[in-house]
Amino acid sequence: MKVLGIDPGNYITGYGIVEKQERHLQHVSHGEFILARGSSRSSCLTTVYRHLLEVIEKSAPDVFAIEDIFYGKNVKSLIRQGEVRGVVILAASQNNLPIYEYSPLEVKKAVVGYGRAEKNQVQMMVKAILKLPQMPSADAADALAVAICHANYLMKTSI
Amino acid sequence: MKVLGIDPGNYITGYGIVEKQERHLQHVSHGEFILARGSSRSSCLTTVYRHLLEVIEKSAPDVFAIEDIFYGKNVKSLIRQGEVRGVVILAASQNNLPIYEYSPLEVKKAVVGYGRAEKNQVQMMVKAILKLPQMPSADAADALAVAICHANYLMKTSI
Repeated sequence: MKVLGIDPGNYITGYGIVEKQERHLQHVSHGEFILARGSSRSSCLTTVYRHLLEVIEKSAPDVFAIEDIFYGKNVKSLIRQGEVRGVVILAASQNNLPIYEYSPLEVKKAVVGYGRAEKNQVQMMVKAILKLPQMPSADAADALAVAICHANYLMKTSI
Repeated sequence: MKVLGIDPGNYITGYGIVEKQERHLQHVSHGEFILARGSSRSSCLTTVYRHLLEVIEKSAPDVFAIEDIFYGKNVKSLIRQGEVRGVVILAASQNNLPIYEYSPLEVKKAVVGYGRAEKNQVQMMVKAILKLPQMPSADAADALAVAICHANYLMKTSI
């Protein structure tokens, strides 16, 4: 089973794909969609949508896992993240992928064993779990962590 | 110039189209995409996206105006509205429509002349301005109001 994890962000959206074969987890790919600051909102959303469709087409995941929004951020940023979530969920849905959602707490617990872990702890654990040659960037690591979380743990109700 | 106004909501997204011919404003159409409570988030977003593409195809607007989110609402609702905004902006952008954004205050000022007007005042004024045989529903009236606001007033920077 191939899991595509997404960490939707205002300017950077990370993605990561892992494959679960019985009890073994294998890294497939990861990366980031980085949006130029100052570019229009509509071109940002179109870019994320188009790139994500390319990733889905290329890697043919079976399931889609997304990190829930952290509620402490400011309102403007939440709405912007909501917009990115909207196009990301749409892209997954158009490809008939079941969608699962995890809170940052659940994701960190799943990979670090501790819900309040720092970003670089997540990066280090993702590197170790997937035996990567080097640490993935913070947002790609978060996306891989969501994918790992889904692959290893919970089968929550799809959204 | 045909303006498509949108009032994106958590469960109901209103749309309204007006045509400006010189100084005259004409009603083209309006309606709502109503999402069944309890249906999955992904199917909701896909429904709004698909219906909006149909409206765009049918009415061929020249420009797209959207009501900004009212910041006082609760955080969960803001994120959900952000998601709807995301797919709505994507649909407009994929059809190469310039996108303009207005705050509820600007919209109410434009149609009622008073930024803190009640919903039914907006409905009544929209009915009067567009010479409609009956009052449009609240969400469709808001969407028509956004379209009127753009047609009559401001040409703000597109988002």
